Amino acid sequence: MELTHFDKKGNAIMVDVTEKNVTDREAVASGRIKVSPEVYAEIVNGTAKKGDVLGVARVAGIMATKQTSNLIPLCHVLPITKSEIDFHMLRDSYEVEAVCTVRVSGKTGVEMEALTGVSVALLTIYDMCKAIDKRMEIGDIHLCKKTGGKSGDIHIL
Amino acid sequence: MELTHFDKKGNAIMVDVTEKNVTDREAVASGRIKVSPEVYAEIVNGTAKKGDVLGVARVAGIMATKQTSNLIPLCHVLPITKSEIDFHMLRDSYEVEAVCTVRVSGKTGVEMEALTGVSVALLTIYDMCKAIDKRMEIGDIHLCKKTGGKSGDIHIL
Amino acid sequence: MELTHFDKKGNAIMVDVTEKNVTDREAVASGRIKVSPEVYAEIVNGTAKKGDVLGVARVAGIMATKQTSNLIPLCHVLPITKSEIDFHMLRDSYEVEAVCTVRVSGKTGVEMEALTGVSVALLTIYDMCKAIDKRMEIGDIHLCKKTGGKSGDIHIL
Amino acid sequence: MELTHFDKKGNAIMVDVTEKNVTDREAVASGRIKVSPEVYAEIVNGTAKKGDVLGVARVAGIMATKQTSNLIPLCHVLPITKSEIDFHMLRDSYEVEAVCTVRVSGKTGVEMEALTGVSVALLTIYDMCKAIDKRMEIGDIHLCKKTGGKSGDIHIL
Amino acid sequence: MELTHFDKKGNAIMVDVTEKNVTDREAVASGRIKVSPEVYAEIVNGTAKKGDVLGVARVAGIMATKQTSNLIPLCHVLPITKSEIDFHMLRDSYEVEAVCTVRVSGKTGVEMEALTGVSVALLTIYDMCKAIDKRMEIGDIHLCKKTGGKSGDIHIL
Amino acid sequence: MELTHFDKKGNAIMVDVTEKNVTDREAVASGRIKVSPEVYAEIVNGTAKKGDVLGVARVAGIMATKQTSNLIPLCHVLPITKSEIDFHMLRDSYEVEAVCTVRVSGKTGVEMEALTGVSVALLTIYDMCKAIDKRMEIGDIHLCKKTGGKSGDIHIL
Repeated sequence: MELTHFDKKGNAIMVDVTEKNVTDREAVASGRIKVSPEVYAEIVNGTAKKGDVLGVARVAGIMATKQTSNLIPLCHVLPITKSEIDFHMLRDSYEVEAVCTVRVSGKTGVEMEALTGVSVALLTIYDMCKAIDKRMEIGDIHLCKKTGGKSGDIHIL
Repeated sequence: MELTHFDKKGNAIMVDVTEKNVTDREAVASGRIKVSPEVYAEIVNGTAKKGDVLGVARVAGIMATKQTSNLIPLCHVLPITKSEIDFHMLRDSYEVEAVCTVRVSGKTGVEMEALTGVSVALLTIYDMCKAIDKRMEIGDIHLCKKTGGKSGDIHIL
Repeated sequence: MELTHFDKKGNAIMVDVTEKNVTDREAVASGRIKVSPEVYAEIVNGTAKKGDVLGVARVAGIMATKQTSNLIPLCHVLPITKSEIDFHMLRDSYEVEAVCTVRVSGKTGVEMEALTGVSVALLTIYDMCKAIDKRMEIGDIHLCKKTGGKSGDIHIL
Repeated sequence: MELTHFDKKGNAIMVDVTEKNVTDREAVASGRIKVSPEVYAEIVNGTAKKGDVLGVARVAGIMATKQTSNLIPLCHVLPITKSEIDFHMLRDSYEVEAVCTVRVSGKTGVEMEALTGVSVALLTIYDMCKAIDKRMEIGDIHLCKKTGGKSGDIHIL
Repeated sequence: MELTHFDKKGNAIMVDVTEKNVTDREAVASGRIKVSPEVYAEIVNGTAKKGDVLGVARVAGIMATKQTSNLIPLCHVLPITKSEIDFHMLRDSYEVEAVCTVRVSGKTGVEMEALTGVSVALLTIYDMCKAIDKRMEIGDIHLCKKTGGKSGDIHIL
Repeated sequence: MELTHFDKKGNAIMVDVTEKNVTDREAVASGRIKVSPEVYAEIVNGTAKKGDVLGVARVAGIMATKQTSNLIPLCHVLPITKSEIDFHMLRDSYEVEAVCTVRVSGKTGVEMEALTGVSVALLTIYDMCKAIDKRMEIGDIHLCKKTGGKSGDIHIL
């Protein structure tokens, strides 16, 4: 097993996927932001009533999935066919979980798009709540699922 | 204390900073990616010899600090005056830590720029190593330090 | 009939078009800017002689059709295969009409690309002429025609 | 009075504002989209309950004000200090009005930013409702107010 | 003398200019594209009559000066205050010369903006003429002049 | 033979490629930057030891190939499937040569992507070394090879 993003001389490259087949591919990623009880309450209230933090974060995350190839240097440009962000309020731990699902009919997968969508959605929550609390922490960002493509399906708990 | 990114009707806004003073501001943020022993070895080797994962991730992170206002919907456009990413290899836990420092002479701070730089640098490491391991996890992303501006200095352990 | 850009919980999504067929699609949109007689004369003269307002606006409109998915949050990324802007000088009403035609071989249509091309072309005319007249008005922006895709062809007068 | 966006040979230029003073400037622009009664009802319901069309359009409009200099070829890059979009539901005419307010401490004004914010907010409404109605029309886009800068204040009804 | 874009460990950085003074700075760069006699005639005809190659290339070059910090990884974000591209037809050598002038009131200079404007203007000429001739060559891209800033003025023949 | 980027009225257009076949296409372009002996030594040392100028320039060039359609007004948006930059140190002439190879499965070729990748890679070298020498010159940018597509293969020495 080797890092595919380098050629034999060790130079960074965008991997050649020209010969690969176009297939339907999906990736799901998730992550969390740990907030203070005050911020948690604001997000819950806001979503119900006014000041919709999650609504803005969702739009930011979806738009970021479309910017992935501009952010991650060796990522391919992919015409993604679905992008979706779900949030779950984890009341016991004062966390918000973001789950991003991306699909494409393409020659390579959309793991990076899903991970980027999660990251930017969580950063947006941080931005909108930082006037109350600057000690929030973003973590547990990982791939949950990947289907389609030659390397087969992957499910990660 | 209130969410400042909403007006009285609860609508999302970019906060008005027109009347604020231009001062020198700095923010430092950090985060980590947990990788497998194989990936860890590849990164260490690569940095010493060939296939410079961290070099590419550093460039990606610095460029991302300049894209922050395009990614985070309510962030101000700031002409940042310094952007830097450091990596530390944490051998005991098979983690790579990224630390991003951003400075600006501006009317508002650069916390989001530093956090975005860290996030994109870590996502780039994920991208470059995912052919070997798709179970890497990004976490512990938080603000470390913020200086300048009216709200005073903050240091977070 | 329902808003397709929301899921069952009411959350904004980029609609899943993975299963749709790739077909040739075209959209035509138009719009107008109403200017003062002085501005109208400048545009006509400029086009004939020097100071080519419409030439710059045409380039801006074409480039904007390629930026559509970065501007409209839930729009798909589409590799458009044709983009064209025509202008008509409407001398009786001191208006400039912009008509934008976009084509794609893709899984969804290019209505938003055509409407965005028209809007940015007209905004560019405003920008270039605003030193003379700030009371110009942009209006009548609508879809004229849409062909290809499952929902059938549409012609709007 | 002359088109300032051309030099003496008639070539398009970005006007030199180097010598101008930095002052606080504000611009307000507005525009409308005319929709069908069904779409109008969906937007009203969505805002109250689920499927928040205006929430997404507001984020799109604010983000677009930050992209103005990338869209309008001869516009200056401005570090805008406030950006805000308000919507008014005009029940008698089945219209949605968007009003965008932008501020900057800068060497030139933000009229184009306000007009671009309005345009993209209205285009986003079109996008989100076009599954129900493709005959919506965007119009009445104009500058309402401009303050600050040497050319003095302007109020347009 | 040292490469300033690296820190003491050899890592790439965006140089810290926070403490530098804001002064008026200007840079002029130029470059050439060598074309076939047929292309040369098309460009001359086009400019006079129709098919304005240089008009499109000028807009592309000006817009590129605003994108410089997104293209060149360690470049600062600068709110440029003037951007201009001139072309000269060099009939004896079948060359088109592009000259780009950029100004800013900022903490660092605009050499890269001027060089990027020239490069993209010339690439655009290539693009528009490549259906006739693919053997065109772009060269002689260099800085001509730089004024303002602590390092003093430079004139290069 | 005619300029294809204009319609019959002489207006700039993005050429319609809707009816063309999707085929595998490749383009290779190259160019050079002439530097001073001091800069040449720094680049050679840097690559071996620290301060990796070429590593940063390679990332910049690869990322630029993905931005081509945003920079060159009439270029199509292409989902490129490979992007690679090689550098050669030409010790006798104190030049660095950049060679960019781009591939796509698409309806039109990637010559502009390869030329843009070369240009931005060389501009990045200029940027990173300009603290030592501002008299560097970029030149000899040309297409080397183009394969795939109806117009046949081309090899240019």
